[in-house]
Amino acid sequence: MRATYKKCLGLLLISGLLLSLFYAWSPGTSSRVDIRSRQRGRIQKLLQGKIQDTISVYQDIGYHIKDDVASHLAQNTCVCRANEDTFQLPFSNPLFPRVWAHDIVLAFLESHPDPSGVKRHRAQEYGSFQKRSYNPADVLIVAEAISPLQYPTQGVKVRPLKTIIIPGLGLKEETGPNHTVYLTASLGTFDVAATVDRVSVEGGGEKHMILSSPLLSALNRQLQFVTYTNTVFHPKTADTVLFATDVHQSFFTIKVEHGIIPKLYNTGNPKEYNISALVTFATKTFLRYDKLKDLIDSIRQYYPSVTIVIADDNEHPQAVTGPHIDHYIMPFRKGWFAGRNLAVSQVTTKYVLWVDDDFLFTANTKVERMVDILEKTTLDLVGGAVREATGYTATYRHTISVEEGGEEGDCLHIRTGYHHVIEGFPNCVVADAVINFFLGRTDKVQQVGFNPRLARHGHLEFFIDALGSLHVGSCSDVIVNHASKIILPWTKTDSDKAYDKFRYSSSSAENDIHKEDFYFKNRLKCMTSH
Amino acid sequence: MRATYKKCLGLLLISGLLLSLFYAWSPGTSSRVDIRSRQRGRIQKLLQGKIQDTISVYQDIGYHIKDDVASHLAQNTCVCRANEDTFQLPFSNPLFPRVWAHDIVLAFLESHPDPSGVKRHRAQEYGSFQKRSYNPADVLIVAEAISPLQYPTQGVKVRPLKTIIIPGLGLKEETGPNHTVYLTASLGTFDVAATVDRVSVEGGGEKHMILSSPLLSALNRQLQFVTYTNTVFHPKTADTVLFATDVHQSFFTIKVEHGIIPKLYNTGNPKEYNISALVTFATKTFLRYDKLKDLIDSIRQYYPSVTIVIADDNEHPQAVTGPHIDHYIMPFRKGWFAGRNLAVSQVTTKYVLWVDDDFLFTANTKVERMVDILEKTTLDLVGGAVREATGYTATYRHTISVEEGGEEGDCLHIRTGYHHVIEGFPNCVVADAVINFFLGRTDKVQQVGFNPRLARHGHLEFFIDALGSLHVGSCSDVIVNHASKIILPWTKTDSDKAYDKFRYSSSSAENDIHKEDFYFKNRLKCMTSH
Repeated sequence: MRATYKKCLGLLLISGLLLSLFYAWSPGTSSRVDIRSRQRGRIQKLLQGKIQDTISVYQDIGYHIKDDVASHLAQNTCVCRANEDTFQLPFSNPLFPRVWAHDIVLAFLESHPDPSGVKRHRAQEYGSFQKRSYNPADVLIVAEAISPLQYPTQGVKVRPLKTIIIPGLGLKEETGPNHTVYLTASLGTFDVAATVDRVSVEGGGEKHMILSSPLLSALNRQLQFVTYTNTVFHPKTADTVLFATDVHQSFFTIKVEHGIIPKLYNTGNPKEYNISALVTFATKTFLRYDKLKDLIDSIRQYYPSVTIVIADDNEHPQAVTGPHIDHYIMPFRKGWFAGRNLAVSQVTTKYVLWVDDDFLFTANTKVERMVDILEKTTLDLVGGAVREATGYTATYRHTISVEEGGEEGDCLHIRTGYHHVIEGFPNCVVADAVINFFLGRTDKVQQVGFNPRLARHGHLEFFIDALGSLHVGSCSDVIVNHASKIILPWTKTDSDKAYDKFRYSSSSAENDIHKEDFYFKNRLKCMTSH
Repeated sequence: MRATYKKCLGLLLISGLLLSLFYAWSPGTSSRVDIRSRQRGRIQKLLQGKIQDTISVYQDIGYHIKDDVASHLAQNTCVCRANEDTFQLPFSNPLFPRVWAHDIVLAFLESHPDPSGVKRHRAQEYGSFQKRSYNPADVLIVAEAISPLQYPTQGVKVRPLKTIIIPGLGLKEETGPNHTVYLTASLGTFDVAATVDRVSVEGGGEKHMILSSPLLSALNRQLQFVTYTNTVFHPKTADTVLFATDVHQSFFTIKVEHGIIPKLYNTGNPKEYNISALVTFATKTFLRYDKLKDLIDSIRQYYPSVTIVIADDNEHPQAVTGPHIDHYIMPFRKGWFAGRNLAVSQVTTKYVLWVDDDFLFTANTKVERMVDILEKTTLDLVGGAVREATGYTATYRHTISVEEGGEEGDCLHIRTGYHHVIEGFPNCVVADAVINFFLGRTDKVQQVGFNPRLARHGHLEFFIDALGSLHVGSCSDVIVNHASKIILPWTKTDSDKAYDKFRYSSSSAENDIHKEDFYFKNRLKCMTSH
């Protein structure tokens, strides 16, 4: 009885111990991580010092500036210059379009109650943004010449908290009694996946490891088995590694990041081409149900079962029904870009086609051509052409570039035109902005998004936000018609009048939002445009 | 008269010429660009050959594998192993949680009418995806030892079609009668911003440039003025540059990309803390207007003027009114993640707080604490804790990792737990997934998005999609209450019964969508989880 009693007591004690262990121990590394700001570590400072030494030599040797090249280099700050003094020939504007300059800083600050406050606020927000986006993999590193060290300068990547073999490490020096290399990291540890005879490994499993051997070839063989394990978790950063001998130092980065998780769309059997499984049409409507109905009727002549997503911010929404129609009701006057962002957020197909609610599909509106170019190239978005009742067809191609400025902000430059014609697609070009009739990869368009603050008008803002994310093209042979804008005043319908009144009456509040977003959100100083 | 006549004719001819020039000349580079697939150029092939040579030496020297390290290396493929054979003590599950394994490939393909077809289709889509995401800046490059060449290995960036000086170029060899270096690129041209006496420059303005001089110091001074101009437009790529002497070759990349255009939010005067300018609350509602009303009432006790965005896909939507409430009506049963994506797409403030429609705010629901940690750290999203009526409080912290697999797909591993405690925030940790009560940076949450195909349930899918994009944290001291789920069957309201019937009845179609998205969209092979 006593034995059983003791066993029970023992079991109870063990269970109690287990339970208290459970409460005390949480599953996770108990180490702490400081994510308050990106401190430059010891290795980073060493690296910066070395670069300074490397590039400050030969200062005594003279040179002659080559203006035609030097003038293309970015300066410390950027400027926006209009070209008011261009000789203006009659009919010359299409040939030599005039460049306008807009001072964004002035336009926004002059009407602001607290200009110095908002300047400071913007600088603060930008500072936090820079700290968050800082990645050691972007820092300048220069490879020393005549270094005995061989090492990978690019392409080394480890998933967070995982282990890899570091490829390409080596040492080339004159044979001697002893050969030693040192490896140091900040966010991870080193070890060896295999050992080689006559090589001593000191600090395996730590942030600083020393390998040495009297035999150079053995040390080199050992260097082929050096591993790096990331120990300080971060979803997307890089560890700067110092690889050195007693005399020489080299630096390289190991990127610490997850692999890209793909977003692949299952569009059904590739042999059975099904446009409805590939594309969703999206539009925003306000005060123009008649035009919207005409649009839908015209679409259905050619695409009877493609899903149409409609974002609607009318005050008194009407039902918009029909098969494959998804109608979303928004609060009254939420606006243009809010509606675009809503519509696009609901798309589940691989591609989304943006159409305005006053477009009309015709036999020339071959969406399949747009799908074709996105399937076959690296483009993420391709615009088409919009044909007015007069026959005038617009593709609205623009190029956009941003010049780095100083504290005042960057300079935005917008020009009509494009970059290149696309090989294999003679009617198509690469540009940065296109007309408001385009097919885009849904996941990429969703990633850029449409700024929901822009209520009444906006177009290029999307493409400015898309810079660097979207590869943009434009094909002039996929044409949609624009419901006629040539309406004599006495023939305008009530809905036309209501729409015009709403859309085209300028609102200073609306303009203020645009100015604010250029100044604050995009941190711009000024812009030039055609 | 004749002179005037001639002048007029002359003017007409000039105008005619100008007009025809206009039609013939379109503003843009007339060159073509091939964006159909990423061909590996000559330089890339040279680089690959060199790496092969570099790493295939010393093969004759033996080694002994270190299992404890080697076992952590990724294999050619990945596996998902359950731990069914763990000794299961009573009460041991929290301490030694069982790991389950799910074969995603099997689950999806076994019920598919055309398994080999969909496998092929997935491989095809993945291939296109890889081609589009390929960037020469990710390719492995190894710096040769004892090379006379000095060059930048990281950090060189040029904006598309712009010009930069390449930093850090140099040559260190024994002085001789002649010193020559060669520079070759594919997507741009070289030149010099300044010339140095006694250095000959051949090929300035072209893709291949040769610099030579009898004076080594002069050549090195000249190398400080070498420029690179990107000429083949691409919004985000890299040019691999070959920098060589007659005997030695080195490779480095120049990234070609726009700078990051920031998305900064103007949250008003930082001195006047205004939670309404900083945060928008977002929720999705279905069949639970009573609970939604309770949520709103509880919010308003503490946050009278924060905007609440509500996505509503009820069949017969009721009005939800009140100041600072934005109510969006969706097509009936569009679903959970579609509603989340919609709500988040409408947010214009810096942060968005996700709440479920059956939460209740209390004095412990201090959103300011969540704002504080996002303001002060590099976190993009921070979860709180949800308290059940029983007092049980959940943070639902999980870690997620993806192991690279082969053709069959990757392996997803989900575990309860976290990575580190956050310095300065003792109740907060870094994790990969958290509970459905979180504050996030609006732009980052919008970039990840909520997959609108997931209609009835879904949670971790968002965090899987967020891997690598969001830095996720969790604080246990910001608590929201969960409206009691402990309802005796006879006290359930009609809306409770309707909701349960809808939410919890399993739909094979719904499960099929989840399986399909794991298999196809995320290209997974299997997963393990607690």
